[in-house]
Amino acid sequence: MTNRITDKIIAIIQNLDENRQAETTLRKSYTIPEILGNLDIAIPERGISPEALTKTIDQVLDKSVKTNNALFMNQMFGKQQSIGVLGDILAVLLNTSMYTYEVAPALTLIEKECIKRLGSFVWKSSETGDGIFTPGSSISNITAMTLARNATFPNSKKTGLFDNLRFSIFVSEHAHYSFVKGALFLGMGEQTIVKVKSDTNGKIDIPSLNKAIGNEVQNGHIPLMLVGIAGTTITGVYDDLYRLSEIAKKYNMWFHVDGAYGGSLLFSSKEKHKLNGIQYADSVSWSLHKIMGVPLVCAVLLTKNKGILENSFAVSADYLFHGDTDLDLGQKSLQCGRRADALKLWLAWKLEGDNGFEGRVDGLMNAANKFSEKINGSEAFELLCLPETPIVCFRFICLELSPGNLNKLNKKIRETIFNDGRILFNYSTYEGKIYLRCVISDPNMDETLMETILTEVTKVANQLLLTKHDLNINTQPV
Amino acid sequence: MTNRITDKIIAIIQNLDENRQAETTLRKSYTIPEILGNLDIAIPERGISPEALTKTIDQVLDKSVKTNNALFMNQMFGKQQSIGVLGDILAVLLNTSMYTYEVAPALTLIEKECIKRLGSFVWKSSETGDGIFTPGSSISNITAMTLARNATFPNSKKTGLFDNLRFSIFVSEHAHYSFVKGALFLGMGEQTIVKVKSDTNGKIDIPSLNKAIGNEVQNGHIPLMLVGIAGTTITGVYDDLYRLSEIAKKYNMWFHVDGAYGGSLLFSSKEKHKLNGIQYADSVSWSLHKIMGVPLVCAVLLTKNKGILENSFAVSADYLFHGDTDLDLGQKSLQCGRRADALKLWLAWKLEGDNGFEGRVDGLMNAANKFSEKINGSEAFELLCLPETPIVCFRFICLELSPGNLNKLNKKIRETIFNDGRILFNYSTYEGKIYLRCVISDPNMDETLMETILTEVTKVANQLLLTKHDLNINTQPV
Repeated sequence: MTNRITDKIIAIIQNLDENRQAETTLRKSYTIPEILGNLDIAIPERGISPEALTKTIDQVLDKSVKTNNALFMNQMFGKQQSIGVLGDILAVLLNTSMYTYEVAPALTLIEKECIKRLGSFVWKSSETGDGIFTPGSSISNITAMTLARNATFPNSKKTGLFDNLRFSIFVSEHAHYSFVKGALFLGMGEQTIVKVKSDTNGKIDIPSLNKAIGNEVQNGHIPLMLVGIAGTTITGVYDDLYRLSEIAKKYNMWFHVDGAYGGSLLFSSKEKHKLNGIQYADSVSWSLHKIMGVPLVCAVLLTKNKGILENSFAVSADYLFHGDTDLDLGQKSLQCGRRADALKLWLAWKLEGDNGFEGRVDGLMNAANKFSEKINGSEAFELLCLPETPIVCFRFICLELSPGNLNKLNKKIRETIFNDGRILFNYSTYEGKIYLRCVISDPNMDETLMETILTEVTKVANQLLLTKHDLNINTQPV
Repeated sequence: MTNRITDKIIAIIQNLDENRQAETTLRKSYTIPEILGNLDIAIPERGISPEALTKTIDQVLDKSVKTNNALFMNQMFGKQQSIGVLGDILAVLLNTSMYTYEVAPALTLIEKECIKRLGSFVWKSSETGDGIFTPGSSISNITAMTLARNATFPNSKKTGLFDNLRFSIFVSEHAHYSFVKGALFLGMGEQTIVKVKSDTNGKIDIPSLNKAIGNEVQNGHIPLMLVGIAGTTITGVYDDLYRLSEIAKKYNMWFHVDGAYGGSLLFSSKEKHKLNGIQYADSVSWSLHKIMGVPLVCAVLLTKNKGILENSFAVSADYLFHGDTDLDLGQKSLQCGRRADALKLWLAWKLEGDNGFEGRVDGLMNAANKFSEKINGSEAFELLCLPETPIVCFRFICLELSPGNLNKLNKKIRETIFNDGRILFNYSTYEGKIYLRCVISDPNMDETLMETILTEVTKVANQLLLTKHDLNINTQPV
C-alpha cells in the first residue's frame, strides 16, 4: 500500500551523496499562503490515497530547507556524514527504547562504548566517568544544573529548594540561553544565573568573574556552579577553561563545561589545546550533531564520576526496571522512552575512526581559517574575531554609513541573500553591531565557494546602497 | 563508499511489511560475553572498511530485539504503522531543527496542524489551545509540573522556590514514575508528590484523595496540581477524570492528565467515554509512539490555553529567534535543537485519516477484549482486571502453591519464555502479586496467536512445576 512512498524515500537515500551537490536552491522563499496553497496541511477524516500522499511528500520536500549542503551555514549543523544518516535510519527501523538492557542489548553496549570513548577525550581515564545521551545540549545543561544542586544540597532531592540557602550559577554573558531557561524551569529562578561580562572576543572576563563571585558571597549566596563555554553560540570562542577550573576549585563550585558546539575539537590533536582545563570539569555537554555531522539529535551529558546520574534520577518502577542500574540506562536519564541516538554516532565513528573524526575537525578549521583570511584581506569586510571553531562572523563595511545604518545594511544583506535561497547564513548582534554569521559544516568547502559567498555579499550590499530607500536608511550625510 | 551499507538499509526498508512476519525469534538470549564475542563494539583509531561495517550491522541486527511484531508485548510500543516508519526516515533525511520557522517552514506548519488536531480531540474547540512536541511523556509530565507552578506562583520563574510556600501535587500510587523524577529534578523535592491510594482496579480512590488534600491543606501546603491518569502504566486503566476535574476546580488546582498511553482512545467514538473529564484538563501528555504505532519518540504536551508555554519558556536569543513567537516553536520548548517528530505522525494521519486511527484503536481493544475473555475462560489463569486499554495482565494459577511460590512461578514463566525469545511480555508486581503483562500493539492480532501465547504459558508452567527445584520453591505441602 505504501510502495510508492517507499520508492520515493529509497530514491532519496540512494542519491544521498550525489543529489545534495546538485541542489542550488536551498530554500524557496514562499509566504505561508503560498505554502498552504500547494501543500494540503489539513488532516482529513478519511485518509488520502498513497498516490496523493506521494505528491504531498513532494510538496513537503519543496517547502523544506536543504540543510545537507556546504552553503547551508545558518545553524550549527549542516553537511552530514552519510553513514550517520544511515545509522539514524537504522535506529528508526530497530525502533526500541534505551531504558532497559533487555529490549536494547546491543544498543545499550553501543551507547556505553560511545560514552566511555567520548569521556576518554575529556578526562583521559575513561573508566571512572559516565554519561547519558540526551535530547539535546539544552537538556544536558539543565540536567547538569540539577547535578550541581544535588552535589551541594543532597537533601534538595527530597525536600526541594523551599527554605534552601540561595545559590548562584555563573555563566558568561555569551552563554547559551538554556542556562536561563534551566533556572526558570528548575525552580531556581532566573536570578540564580549571574551573567558575567566577556572580553571583546567573547571569552568570560576573569576579573569580572572574581568580582561577581565576591558580590554573591557577600550577599549570602552560595557559589554553586561555574560554567565554562567551549564554543560560544555566536562567535564560537572558548572560555579559558583552565583558569575557570581553578576558580571553581577555589570556591568548591561544580564546574560544568558547555561543549555543545566546540567539544568536538577534542578529536583534533592540533586543536584540543583550546579546551585545556576541561579535564577538571565535573560535567560536560557535547552535541555530536553539530560539528560531527550526524543527524539531529545526538547529544550527551558526560560526568567525571560514576554514580552521579543514578543518584540523581533512579526511581523504582518494578514493571520496567528489573535489574542492573548500570545496564538499564533509563535509571540515569530524565527520559523514560528514549531513541537510540548513539547508534548513528557509533557507526560513523567505527567507519571513520578517531583519525577520520580528527580529519573532519581539521578540515573544518582549515576552511574557517581560509575564509577568515579572505575576509581579513578585503577592505569591504570586517571580521569579528579569528575563528576558534568553524564559525566565521563578519560584516560588510561602508564608511559613509552611521553605525545604525550599517546595522540596517548588514541585516538587509542577510535578508536579501536568505530570500534568494542559494546561500543561507544567519545574523546576530554582537556588542551592538550586526554581523553575518556563517557556520561552516562542510570539511571540504573549497575556496571557490568562499569567493561565491563574498562576491554575493558585496554584490547585494552595493545594490542595496544604490537604492537606499529599501534600507530605510537616512540619506542625509552622516 | 557507503554503497553496501546503503543497500543493506534499503533492503530492510523494502521488506518492512513482509520481513517482520517471517521473524519467529524476536530476541536471542545472548550473554554479554556472547554479544561482545561477535560484535566488535570498540571504536578504533583507524576506521574499518565499509565491508566490515556491513558485517557489524548484521551483528547489531542479530543482537537487537525485533519490536515490530505482534508477539512483542514487552513494552508500551511495538507493531508499527509502516507509513510512520517512512515518515521518520524522511525526518532524518530532511535533518532540520524545529526551533525556527525559517529553517523548518513546512514542518512548523505540520507540527502546528498536529497540535491543533490533537487538541481538538481533547477540548472540542481547537482554536484556543496549544502544545509542543517533546522528547517523551516523562518530559511532558515534568514540563506540566512547571506550568502548574507558574500558574499559582508566577514569580517563581524569576525568584525560584526559595522562601516559596510549600505545595503538593496529587497523583495516584499507580502514576508513572516521571512525577517523582520531576519533583526531584525541579527542586520541588520528592515529598511534594502525594501518592494517593487506588482502588483494586488501579483507579485513584476518591475518598482517599479528598482526605489527602485535607491533610496537606492542614499542614499549610497549597494544593497545586492534580494528576489524572488516562491509562495507568501497569494495568492501563483510567482514573475517573470527571470527578478529578471537579476536585481540581474546587481547590483551584492545575489539572493535568497523563494520557501518555491511553490518550489515543480519544480517537475512538466507542472508547473515548473512558476519558470523560479530560476536556477540563489544563494540560495533557500524550505519546503517539505507543498505541498509534509510529516510531519512538512521538510525544506532545498539550495546553488548554494559548500563551502558557511561551510565558514559561521564551527567552531572548537574537542569534536564533528573529521573529514570531507563535511560528518559532523553540520559544515554547524546553529544547533548543529538536527533531521533526511531528512529520511521522502527520503522514500516518493523512494516509489513515481520523477513521483509520479510530480503526486501529478499535482493533486493539477488540484484540485485548478477546484475549481477556480467553484468559477468563480458563481455570489455569487469573485476569487482573478487564482491560480498559490494550494491556492485559494475568497470572498462571496453581492452588497448591503459597502466594510467595506462586509469584516465583509466574516470574519464572516470564523469564523462561522471554529467554526462549519467540514471545516477549513483561511482568509486574501488583498488590503483592506477580502478573504477566502483555501490551497488545497489533490491531490485527488474531485468536491463533492468543492461543499460542496461552498454550506456551501453560506448557512452561507445567514444566516448571515438574522440576520445582528450578523455582527454588519450597517442596513441602503448603
